[in-house]
This record gives sequence, structure tokens and C-alpha cells, in this order.
Amino acid sequence: MAVRKYDLKEDCTFLKDGEAVCVILDQTALPGRRIYRELTTAEDFYEAIKTLAVRGAPAIGVCACYAMYVLAARMEATDFADLRARLGADGDYLISSRPTAVNLAWGVREMLSFADSLADLPIPEIVAAMREKSEEIHRDHIDMNYRIAEYGLTLVKPGDGILTHCNAGPLACLKYGTATAPILLGHERGIPFRVFADETRPLLQGARLTAYELSEAGVDVTLICDNMASLVMKNGWVQAVFVGCDRIAANGDFANKIGTSGVAVLAKYYGIPFYTLGPTSTVDMDCPTGADIEIELRDPEEIKSRWYREPMSPAGVACYNPSFDVTDHSLVTAIVTDRGIVYPPFDENLRKLYL
Amino acid sequence: MAVRKYDLKEDCTFLKDGEAVCVILDQTALPGRRIYRELTTAEDFYEAIKTLAVRGAPAIGVCACYAMYVLAARMEATDFADLRARLGADGDYLISSRPTAVNLAWGVREMLSFADSLADLPIPEIVAAMREKSEEIHRDHIDMNYRIAEYGLTLVKPGDGILTHCNAGPLACLKYGTATAPILLGHERGIPFRVFADETRPLLQGARLTAYELSEAGVDVTLICDNMASLVMKNGWVQAVFVGCDRIAANGDFANKIGTSGVAVLAKYYGIPFYTLGPTSTVDMDCPTGADIEIELRDPEEIKSRWYREPMSPAGVACYNPSFDVTDHSLVTAIVTDRGIVYPPFDENLRKLYL
Repeated sequence: MAVRKYDLKEDCTFLKDGEAVCVILDQTALPGRRIYRELTTAEDFYEAIKTLAVRGAPAIGVCACYAMYVLAARMEATDFADLRARLGADGDYLISSRPTAVNLAWGVREMLSFADSLADLPIPEIVAAMREKSEEIHRDHIDMNYRIAEYGLTLVKPGDGILTHCNAGPLACLKYGTATAPILLGHERGIPFRVFADETRPLLQGARLTAYELSEAGVDVTLICDNMASLVMKNGWVQAVFVGCDRIAANGDFANKIGTSGVAVLAKYYGIPFYTLGPTSTVDMDCPTGADIEIELRDPEEIKSRWYREPMSPAGVACYNPSFDVTDHSLVTAIVTDRGIVYPPFDENLRKLYL
Repeated sequence: MAVRKYDLKEDCTFLKDGEAVCVILDQTALPGRRIYRELTTAEDFYEAIKTLAVRGAPAIGVCACYAMYVLAARMEATDFADLRARLGADGDYLISSRPTAVNLAWGVREMLSFADSLADLPIPEIVAAMREKSEEIHRDHIDMNYRIAEYGLTLVKPGDGILTHCNAGPLACLKYGTATAPILLGHERGIPFRVFADETRPLLQGARLTAYELSEAGVDVTLICDNMASLVMKNGWVQAVFVGCDRIAANGDFANKIGTSGVAVLAKYYGIPFYTLGPTSTVDMDCPTGADIEIELRDPEEIKSRWYREPMSPAGVACYNPSFDVTDHSLVTAIVTDRGIVYPPFDENLRKLYL
């Protein structure tokens, strides 16, 4: 595929040429400062994941694969048993940096079983193969996003206005991102879009990350507050909504960043198609409906004081701070995956993806 | 009416007992600090209005009336011509502090023509009458809010969840406020409500002012980000939406703080009654529909950097920052005024208000 030619060093996590060094773009410094950090020790990787310098499920997964290679390469192991024991311990340590990050554990285990499969080879050959394997996994992720981009591009036309919520772009999901994939691939091909990025309170991922990614790429992007989406749609400026997804139930209900369901209701009211974009792995066929998805409640201080010079609400006031909401499948026009576009009835058509 | 017994000193602007001093609660220090400031000179009043220490159309109007009395009382005028000339000049100076504030000019002119009607009386008697007049105007405003509260209370029942957006409470609109009036009067009578206050980006009037007013009064209030309203409604926690209004067109379309139209769309989708509350003076029968209301665009830095320790979006990125939006009358269940509750068809029934 065409995407194979892309330089991995354009991404937010990659290996330095000819060295056992993983470089990351520090997401905690964005959008103010563009700082690259070099990671070489288990403590470096632990810290980078813990502090959210690397964040987003796919980016964390790939960074974990790179970590396993870098640590193996620098270990000066005496034999495979030595390498495997120390790498296993490092992997457990890395996983403990964000215990709920499924992709982190997946990346560590993927690389450990790959090493196991090469146990009979000399250490330098195992290490070299691990480098190749980790970069291959990175490219596989980009391939999926590329396919999502191609399918998504069939749903919009040049000049369309596209509204997006939160961040499912290259920083979280690697090159092209997922919700941003058709926009960024289209932009590479000279197809113009006008994007509206919801700032996405309380953590401002839309303002800090999506607006950053799209403006860095040269896309025409306009930042709005979440409560402005209704007027932007009423103005006739939006022809499609593209959002990411954290988990898709078997009936097409899906969980995504808080506020997504409100955007979907607005899109329905204003007659605008509403799409969620993500890899097939996001579909959880063991989860029958959105009612089975638990909503994480987070610290009220994210609303009340984070980012601010002084608290912007009364000290004692109660807050409700859900991290996600569930969008009903009846509000979804289609689900765009790396295996194709899924239309209603979702229960039937999502099942076909796995046949 | 019962409301006449209320102590004006509970409000955000009032006269000190037995002294020509206007006291205001400084809104720029809220919600962090509760600071009362004493105003006695034209410069004091100019500064308080200019810096938004006093804000909200009704509160500014009443403060302007108090200013005219305080300045007259402290003037030591030799005769009426002297008093009138200097008071007229002070009035022009005050109006220049916020030239677009209709209620400011109204308050100044109301008090000047009242003084003119007493031109033959001795100066001390004029001054004493001006004190009475200004407090009467304050009580008239409270009476209107009281009537809005009584009508609004017929629309909800004890224990109901009420969602509100932005701030149309006592700080802006004097005692009870308008959108908050049924909640606060109900609370005085021991009727419990559970209120959800949208924080209302970008200026956070919901977090800074509404959440403050309601929690100070002892009302059960929960602060949410604007994008959480959809989930709160889906959870079944909201039985009515109460919002204020800046201008109501003859067909029932109305302008209010940005985001109001989105809340109205959500309420419609979730089957929740949506009410706007305001004095009859908010209805502009010369404005046929909401399409005739111009939307003010404000400084992008309100979204990008205001309140924050550092900018939370890329320096060069475009922003769209409309201050208001227009809610279509088809989304409005009823308009609650001091003269009664107006139901659809609004064009017909609003006209009847003026017969």
C-alpha cells in the first residue's frame, strides 16, 4: 500500500535512525511548546506514559513496543534466559504506569511473545528483529488509519464543513488519526475542507490537540466552544460530523468523550450526517448495547480549577464530571472502520465484519 | 404584594441606611471573594459599571438610579438650576461608561425627569424624594421578578430537576433573578429542586455567578460543563429547562447566551419542557423573527487565553466566538413573563400581552 512509504519519524513516537533510542513528542507541553524527548531507560518510558507525555490508546501501544526493543538492545544480556527475565520484569514495570491502558499491556506482551519465538537466535539478531517488528506494528496501525481515511473520504466532498469533537488525531492514534484521517489524507491530496473543532471541556483536547494537529498540517480549522456547535450547524457550515469512539457495542451504540451524544442530537436535528470512525478492534461484540458500558466519573477539580489562574466556581459547589457518554445508534449515520463503512441495521452489519 | 417587605440590602446594589452611599457587591471578585464597595462619587459609579463590578441590564439600571440620588445628595447645590445642570453632566458621564447599556441611560433619564417634576421644591426635599424614587424603582424590578417566579412555579413540582444555562439570577437581574426566580422563591417556601447549572463557556457565567448565587441561597445545585447537558437529560435528571432571554421576537424566536439553542434542541429530543423567563419589556414587537437579530462576535482570546495560566490552543488558530444564538420558537414550550405564561402560537399570544 502507498502508506508504507511514509516516514515514521513524522509521528509522535518513533525510533531514532541507527540507535536504540525512542523519541516522543511531549504532549504535556502542547500546544505551547514542541518538545521532543529521548527515552532509553525503563524509568524514562514509565514516566512518559504516567505523565501523559505519550497518550491515546494506539500511541501508547506502539510506544510500548518501541520500549521493549530499546530496553532489549541496551540490556547487554548474557543469554536469552537473562534477556527474557529482565525484559519481562521491565514489561511488568511499564504496565504498572497505567494499569487500565489495554494497548500498553498488549504492546508489551506482543513483543515478549515475539522475542520468545526467536529464543534460539543469537541476542544481536533477536534485538534486530525486535526493532523491525516494532516498526512493523507501527506501520500496521498507520495502515488501518489509512484505510479508515479512504473509506471516510467517500462520505464528503471538496469544500465540505466537518465538525469534530475531542481528539482522535495523530497524537493519540498515530499518523492521520482516526476521526481526523479523511481530513488529513484529503488535505495531502489537495482536497479542501473547513473543520470546526469543539474545544471539548473540561480537558480541552479539541483546543489543545486537535486544533494543534490540524493547524500544523495546514488544514483550515476553526476552534469553537462546545456550546457553539448548534449555531455553527444552523449557519449551514457543517456537512458532516466525524468523531472517534472508545467502544462500540454490538447494536451500534458507542461510547466516546463526554459531549459526543449532544453533538449527535444536534446533527440529527439539523439534518447533518453523523459518523464515528475507528478500527474494527473498537467494536466489542460481547457488549450488547450502550446500556452495558459503564461511565467513568472524574475529579470535579478538572471542571472547577484545572488550567485556571484561580478557581472559577464556588469552593463548595457540587460537580458532575462524567468522562464519556454513550451515543444511541439511532443517531449514527454510519460507522467507518478499516474494513469498510457499516450502515444500519448495525446489529446485523457489525456482525458481518467478523465473518 | 408580599414582596414589598423584602430588605433591599439583600440585593447586589442598595443604599446604605440614612446615608447617601450606594453599596455594591463587586461581581469581578466572585466567586472567590465577597467584596462590598461603597460608591459616592461620579467616578466611583463610572468605574464600577465600566469594570463590570455591577453587570446585568436590570442591576445596571437600578444602580444608575441610585447614582443620580447619591450625586444629588452630595452636590450641595445652590438652587435647582445648579443641581440640574451638574446632575445632567454627571448623567452623561455615567452613560459613557457603557454606551450600549440601554438600562443605564434609562435609569439616568428616569431620575432626571423625576427631578424636573419637583423643580419648585426646596433642594433637600427633592433629594429626599429622589431617594424614595430610586428605591421604588428597585422594588418595581423585584416585583416583576416575583411575578415571573410565581408563574414559573406553576410549571414545576417539588423535587424536579431544572437545568439552566448562563446567568439570569439576582446578580444580573436583582432579587430572585428571572430564570432563577421560580427556583429561589420556591426554595424560600421550602420547595426542593435539584438544579444543574451549565458552566457556559467562554465567560463561565454559569460557574462563576449562577452556581454562586444558588449555592449561597442553599439551593441544591450541580455544576456541569455545557457538553454534559445531553447525558444529564438522558439520565432522566431534568424535568424542565429554565433560561433567560436578551430579546424576544414577535414570533417567539429569542436571543440568549450562546449555547441556549443547543440546550433547546436537546430538551426537544429528550422530551423535556423548555421555558424562557423574562420581563415583558424583553419582547420586541418591532422585531418580526429571530433572523432579524444580529449576533455579536467577540474577541477570540475569550476562548483561547482568558482565565488560563497559559494559552490552551495554538497561537495562530482561528476562533469563532459568537456571544448569543437565536432559539427557534418551535423549540420553546412557553415564555414566562411578569404578565403571565405565553404559549404557542406565540405570534398571536405575544400580541395579546400588549392589548
